[in-house]
Amino acid sequence: MKVVEVLHMNGGNGDISYANNSLVQKKVILMTKPIRDQAISDLYCNLFPETLYIADLGCSSGANTFLVVSELVKVIEKERKKHDLQSPEFYFHFNDLPGNDFNAIFRSLGEFEQNLKKQIGEELGPCFFSGVAGSFYSRLFPSKSLHFVHSSYSLMWLSQVPNLIEKNKGNIYMASTSPPSVIKAYYKQYEKDFSIFLKYRSEELMKGGKMVLTFLGRESEDPFSKECCYIWELLSMALNELVLEGLIEEEKVDSFNIPQYTPSQGEVKYVVDKEGSFTINKLETTRVHWNNASNNIENINNDGYNVSKCMRAVAEPLLLSQFDPKLIDLVFQKYEEIVSKCMAKEDTEFINVTVSLTKKK
Amino acid sequence: MKVVEVLHMNGGNGDISYANNSLVQKKVILMTKPIRDQAISDLYCNLFPETLYIADLGCSSGANTFLVVSELVKVIEKERKKHDLQSPEFYFHFNDLPGNDFNAIFRSLGEFEQNLKKQIGEELGPCFFSGVAGSFYSRLFPSKSLHFVHSSYSLMWLSQVPNLIEKNKGNIYMASTSPPSVIKAYYKQYEKDFSIFLKYRSEELMKGGKMVLTFLGRESEDPFSKECCYIWELLSMALNELVLEGLIEEEKVDSFNIPQYTPSQGEVKYVVDKEGSFTINKLETTRVHWNNASNNIENINNDGYNVSKCMRAVAEPLLLSQFDPKLIDLVFQKYEEIVSKCMAKEDTEFINVTVSLTKKK
Repeated sequence: MKVVEVLHMNGGNGDISYANNSLVQKKVILMTKPIRDQAISDLYCNLFPETLYIADLGCSSGANTFLVVSELVKVIEKERKKHDLQSPEFYFHFNDLPGNDFNAIFRSLGEFEQNLKKQIGEELGPCFFSGVAGSFYSRLFPSKSLHFVHSSYSLMWLSQVPNLIEKNKGNIYMASTSPPSVIKAYYKQYEKDFSIFLKYRSEELMKGGKMVLTFLGRESEDPFSKECCYIWELLSMALNELVLEGLIEEEKVDSFNIPQYTPSQGEVKYVVDKEGSFTINKLETTRVHWNNASNNIENINNDGYNVSKCMRAVAEPLLLSQFDPKLIDLVFQKYEEIVSKCMAKEDTEFINVTVSLTKKK
Repeated sequence: MKVVEVLHMNGGNGDISYANNSLVQKKVILMTKPIRDQAISDLYCNLFPETLYIADLGCSSGANTFLVVSELVKVIEKERKKHDLQSPEFYFHFNDLPGNDFNAIFRSLGEFEQNLKKQIGEELGPCFFSGVAGSFYSRLFPSKSLHFVHSSYSLMWLSQVPNLIEKNKGNIYMASTSPPSVIKAYYKQYEKDFSIFLKYRSEELMKGGKMVLTFLGRESEDPFSKECCYIWELLSMALNELVLEGLIEEEKVDSFNIPQYTPSQGEVKYVVDKEGSFTINKLETTRVHWNNASNNIENINNDGYNVSKCMRAVAEPLLLSQFDPKLIDLVFQKYEEIVSKCMAKEDTEFINVTVSLTKKK
C-alpha cells in the first residue's frame, strides 16, 4: 500500500463523508485555540508582515478546513487594530494528499470568503487561497516562503506502514499482543517521519516562523498504553469476527497495518531536540471524549454509530485498499456494535498532543 | 447566468472531457512557443531569481495544463546551464474557475513530476505546484508575488454576458444580424474586463515581471468579421433548428449569449496602452485550422465530429445552464452536421492573438 496514493478522508458531503463526520476533529481545533492564538499573535507582532503566508497541512475538506482560517484571521485582525495598522494580505495554502477532495474546498471558497468578510467587516485585507497536493513528508513549498504552519489531526499518519520483520498477527495496529519488534518498527518510522517533517518545514519557514501541530498521541510514555491503540483494536476485533465467519482471509488481517503512530510528549520533545531546527514554546496534552463524534440530537444516544461513521470517514480508503469493498458496510456494522458496548462500559477518550514551535534561525 | 459559477471546461477524462478534446488548444500552445520562450528567457536572465514564481491562468485540466510547465522548465534549464548556475526552485500556480477539475490535476501531478525529472535529469531544482481557484478578473495572488504569467485560450472569456439593451434575436453571439448596440456592449465589456485583468496582474507581478497571453481574436479590425463569430454562428444555427422543430423555445435562444469576445490586435494595443501598467514587447496573430481538433487517425476524416466534440468540451456547461440537458446530445449532433458541411466547403480557421508584455515599474 502506498500511503500517499491511498490515504485520504472520504470526499464530498454525503452521509459517510469526512465533511459530515468530523466533529471530534472540530472539537479539537476549538480546544487548541489558546495555543494557536498565542503563536500566531506572537508571530504577527514580531514581524508585522504585509502579506502573511500560512499553510494548513492535512486540511481535508469541509467546515474544519475553513474553521482554522477564520480563527487565525480573527486573531490577526484584533492585533493589527491594537497596533493601529491596516489589515495585511492573507495567503492561505491548503495542503493534503492528492486523493483529498480539493474540488469541494474550491467550490465552497466563494461562500466562505463572503461570510468571513461579513464577520470581519470591509476593512479585512485581501485573502488568497491555494491548494497544494502532496505529502508533508516531502517539500511542499519554496524555501523561506511561509510564516506559519498549522496542522491538526494529521501528523499521526506515517509516510508508510513500517517495515515489519515479524507478522503482527491478528492485529492491524500496535497491540498488547504485538511482538516487540512491531512496536519498535512503528516508533522508528515515527522518528524518521517526524524528523523529516521538521527538516522540510524549517526549510520552508521564514526566519521567526512558527508551527502549531496537534495530533493523536498518548499521555503515558508506554507505547502499549490502551489510550492510543484502543480505537484500532476495536476495528481489528470487527475484522477478526469476519475472519471467524469465513468472510475475510486471516492473512488479509495479519498483513494489514494502519500507518499511524500516536507519540507521547516525551517522544515529541526527543525528536524535536534531536532534529534541532525548532525551539519548543509549548507542549501539552488534552483529552476529547469519543462521544464528541455525535453530530446531531437524534443520534446523541447512539455514540457507537457516530464514532463508527467518524472512523469510517477517516479509514475507509485504507480498508478499501486491502479488503473486499462489498464487506465494508458489514465491517463498520460490527465495529459500531463493538464500539457501543465499549462506550457503555468505560470512559473512552482520544488523547491529543499539541506542540507550538519556533524556527531557531 | 453567473459566468464564474457556470463556466468550466468539461472535467475528468471521458469521451467529451476537455482533457481528451483539446488538441486545438495544444496546437496553439506549441505554435506560440517562440514568443513564450523569449519572454521567460529574458525574464530569467534579467533577474536570476532563486525561486521562479509562475502562474498559468485558465489552466483547465489534462495534458495541456502540464505542457506549458515542461516547456517553460526546459527553457530555464537551458539558460541556467549557459550561465553555469544551479537550477532554481520553480513554483507553478495553476489557476482556473472553481468549477475546474483541480482534483484531476492534482492526481496526475506525481506522474508528471517523475517524467519531468526523467527528461531534465536529477539536477532539476525542486518544483512546487499549487491550485488557485477564482476568476482572473479578480485578484488571485498576493502583491508582487509573481515573476511570470501565462494564459492560453482563456482571456477571450468575459467576466459576464454583456448587459444588452436590445435583444440579440436568433443569435447566441455577435453576428451580422445583431443590432449595433449588441456589438458595442460586447466591446465595452471586453475593454472593461481586459483593463481590470491588466491592473490586477500588475499588482501581483514583481518588478520586471512578464506576461504572455494568447486568446482567440481577429485579424480584421471589423468586429463583425466572420473569422471570430463563425464557430458560434454555426452553434446558433443548430439551436435554431431545434427551435423550428419545437424542441427549444425561441426565447431561450434569444436570451442566451456566449460571454466571449475575440479582439483584434488594434483593440488589444488600445486597452494595454490606456491601462498603462505594461509595455508591449510583441503582438502577433496566428491561424490554426479547425481540423487540428482531430485527435486520432480513425477520426481524421471526420473533422465535423472532432470540432463538435472540442466545442462541446468547452461550451457544454454554459449550454446546460440555459437549455434542457436532455437536448444537449441532439444540439451537438446537429452542430456536427453543420460544421462538417461548412468545413467541406471552405477553409475554417481560428485566429489567435498573442501578446507579450513587461510590467513597467
